[in-house]
Amino acid sequence: MTRSPVSRTIQEVMALLAPMVQWFTRIPELRATYGSEICDFGSGNPQEGAIEGYARVLKRWADPQEPDWFAYKVSEPKAQAVVAASLRDYVGIAFEPEDIALTNASIAALAVTLRTVCEPGDEVVIVSPPHFLYEPLIRAASASAVRVKVLPETFDLDLEAVAQALTPRTRAMIVNTPHNPTGRIFPPAILQRLAGLLTEASERHQPVFLLSDEAYNRILFDNRRFASPAAHYRRTFLIYSYGKVLLAPMQRIGYIAMHPQMPEREAFRVALMAGQIATGYAWPNALLQHALHDLDPLRVDIEQLQVRRDRMVDALRELGYELHVPEATFYLMPRSPITDDERFCEWLTEEKIIAMPGSFLELPGYFRLSLTATDNMIDRSLPGFARAMKRAREV
Amino acid sequence: MTRSPVSRTIQEVMALLAPMVQWFTRIPELRATYGSEICDFGSGNPQEGAIEGYARVLKRWADPQEPDWFAYKVSEPKAQAVVAASLRDYVGIAFEPEDIALTNASIAALAVTLRTVCEPGDEVVIVSPPHFLYEPLIRAASASAVRVKVLPETFDLDLEAVAQALTPRTRAMIVNTPHNPTGRIFPPAILQRLAGLLTEASERHQPVFLLSDEAYNRILFDNRRFASPAAHYRRTFLIYSYGKVLLAPMQRIGYIAMHPQMPEREAFRVALMAGQIATGYAWPNALLQHALHDLDPLRVDIEQLQVRRDRMVDALRELGYELHVPEATFYLMPRSPITDDERFCEWLTEEKIIAMPGSFLELPGYFRLSLTATDNMIDRSLPGFARAMKRAREV
Repeated sequence: MTRSPVSRTIQEVMALLAPMVQWFTRIPELRATYGSEICDFGSGNPQEGAIEGYARVLKRWADPQEPDWFAYKVSEPKAQAVVAASLRDYVGIAFEPEDIALTNASIAALAVTLRTVCEPGDEVVIVSPPHFLYEPLIRAASASAVRVKVLPETFDLDLEAVAQALTPRTRAMIVNTPHNPTGRIFPPAILQRLAGLLTEASERHQPVFLLSDEAYNRILFDNRRFASPAAHYRRTFLIYSYGKVLLAPMQRIGYIAMHPQMPEREAFRVALMAGQIATGYAWPNALLQHALHDLDPLRVDIEQLQVRRDRMVDALRELGYELHVPEATFYLMPRSPITDDERFCEWLTEEKIIAMPGSFLELPGYFRLSLTATDNMIDRSLPGFARAMKRAREV
Repeated sequence: MTRSPVSRTIQEVMALLAPMVQWFTRIPELRATYGSEICDFGSGNPQEGAIEGYARVLKRWADPQEPDWFAYKVSEPKAQAVVAASLRDYVGIAFEPEDIALTNASIAALAVTLRTVCEPGDEVVIVSPPHFLYEPLIRAASASAVRVKVLPETFDLDLEAVAQALTPRTRAMIVNTPHNPTGRIFPPAILQRLAGLLTEASERHQPVFLLSDEAYNRILFDNRRFASPAAHYRRTFLIYSYGKVLLAPMQRIGYIAMHPQMPEREAFRVALMAGQIATGYAWPNALLQHALHDLDPLRVDIEQLQVRRDRMVDALRELGYELHVPEATFYLMPRSPITDDERFCEWLTEEKIIAMPGSFLELPGYFRLSLTATDNMIDRSLPGFARAMKRAREV
């Protein structure tokens, strides 16, 4: 029998990615077809460019200040110090600079951490709806994903389901808070109880590591406060990307920060470096590490995002859509007026509106809209949303 | 039994990296001890900063020209076109733009390609002395490395050894030409015969893929021409990094280019994308992809490097060192005047000269000097080289 040219692992990754790849491939096609008329609420990609001042910072740090400005680096001590200070102020935990691994953003941070802790046969618990890359990255680390659904209505963590999902084979859990796509910030009381479950499982079987994916932790509405799972559980890898808050996801910089009380921290300091090498030398570019001091304080205009959220929620509700008001992130999750959310998103496409079917996100019966669209797109889209609702009511 | 916090694969990678990590860790210590007196010929890191004009190009492309300038990307069509044109002119092969995967430089390109083609149990042939990351990356792709030594004196490919190394389990071979650290450009006649061996093995057992690591293919001396293995073998992944020629290794951009006659090319187009995702979203930053049009033509000052090579070769020979004249790359490989090259490098350290022992590179009896040192370091180092030679003669 002739073997496939492609390794089994990468074949599995391909199979897991196929629906999303197919969906994302359509976006440029639709943009080509409809040109400037398209209203793209589909991906979380910024439609208005990076935030004010971003290019200025890059240019400021592009001039070498030392001969080895662009020479080989791992995590730059200055960048580690920026992150440690930022986490101390923002999360209230004194992470040690040496416990911060700068990575080329969250996907690399997840890939590196999973490869470093997982063996074949391990299970990694993920919260459904999950980021569409969690399962491929878990498979690439030769482990398997075990899902726990968020609670209906509140979109909160289902702790009973978590308790049932924890087995002797559980090696890690990924929690994403604020949660994409529901915009839910998991509250401290729930995180505290989650930590209890993970501690119990760690004591009963083997250490369970928490990967806390906090890419949206600075995009909060209504003056809410963010609660990091790291405040409750010491075996936490806090994973962050600057891509969302800077609206520059393809300038890849982020980090893995190890909790100062993580018992295995010393071993992981070296192991994560080996993991980063095995993951294709997954450190951020020199320019971004130099610039981090000036990038860290920058923020997307949250007020403007909130105004946009409120306007869109009000307008959609007025048209008859049911939707909750997200606490954080970029996303709205209206209910699909018909059961088949994929079909409804097709109708929206006919109205030149790109929205992501909830089925693709493991939340059938909903569709996702990203607030990274422009205000102008919102204006232009509302008659289309109205017509699609009318069509739904006529079915 | 308590399991290790670190996965077996990453433990293996750590063990393979340990000697080099230890060695590289000493460089900043020595620099701290000796300050500006140190003459660092150790790593291939640029000691004089990136090449003229580099920062200007970055700044030129930092200003967004479209709203999605820094938005999520894979391989940008414009960057693929730049690479295809560059390869057509430089290597003389018409690679298709769609067959070019932009990656965050060579290490990622190797990691992605190896993961995409290798299964557990596969063997990957490497040429010794190899780059110190080849074996860790092969292990990270769950395959094992099989070494073939270069011929003594000529440092040429040992085709008989290659023929013996090819087994039914051989999945790939990595060839690095121009070769680090010997500076040898493997000649077309040898590459042609290598292609014959690989074709025969592919027909007898299973397809064998050639990973042609050409990071130094534009750093050639004496007006030599570069011959790519891709000109001789269709199952070639041509792997390139811009880090060497731009003296900016930590601004990570490079590529995997698939030979236009590779039979499995269609399957690999999608598979390499999945491989890049599995490798932590291993595409280069948006800024570097935009800038590639202006970066591709830039070159380190080869004439200056050649003058430096000649000066250093002459000076060292005059002091009694035996060494060949490299055809390409950054490196000189003098013979150690005493059998124990590690000990000799210690003596050099006492003279404030950092050199890499050949033993670390699998070429015992030699030591490596990188021409990325400054002219001033060469001036200052020569008395130290003289004293170390005197000491060797007195043993």
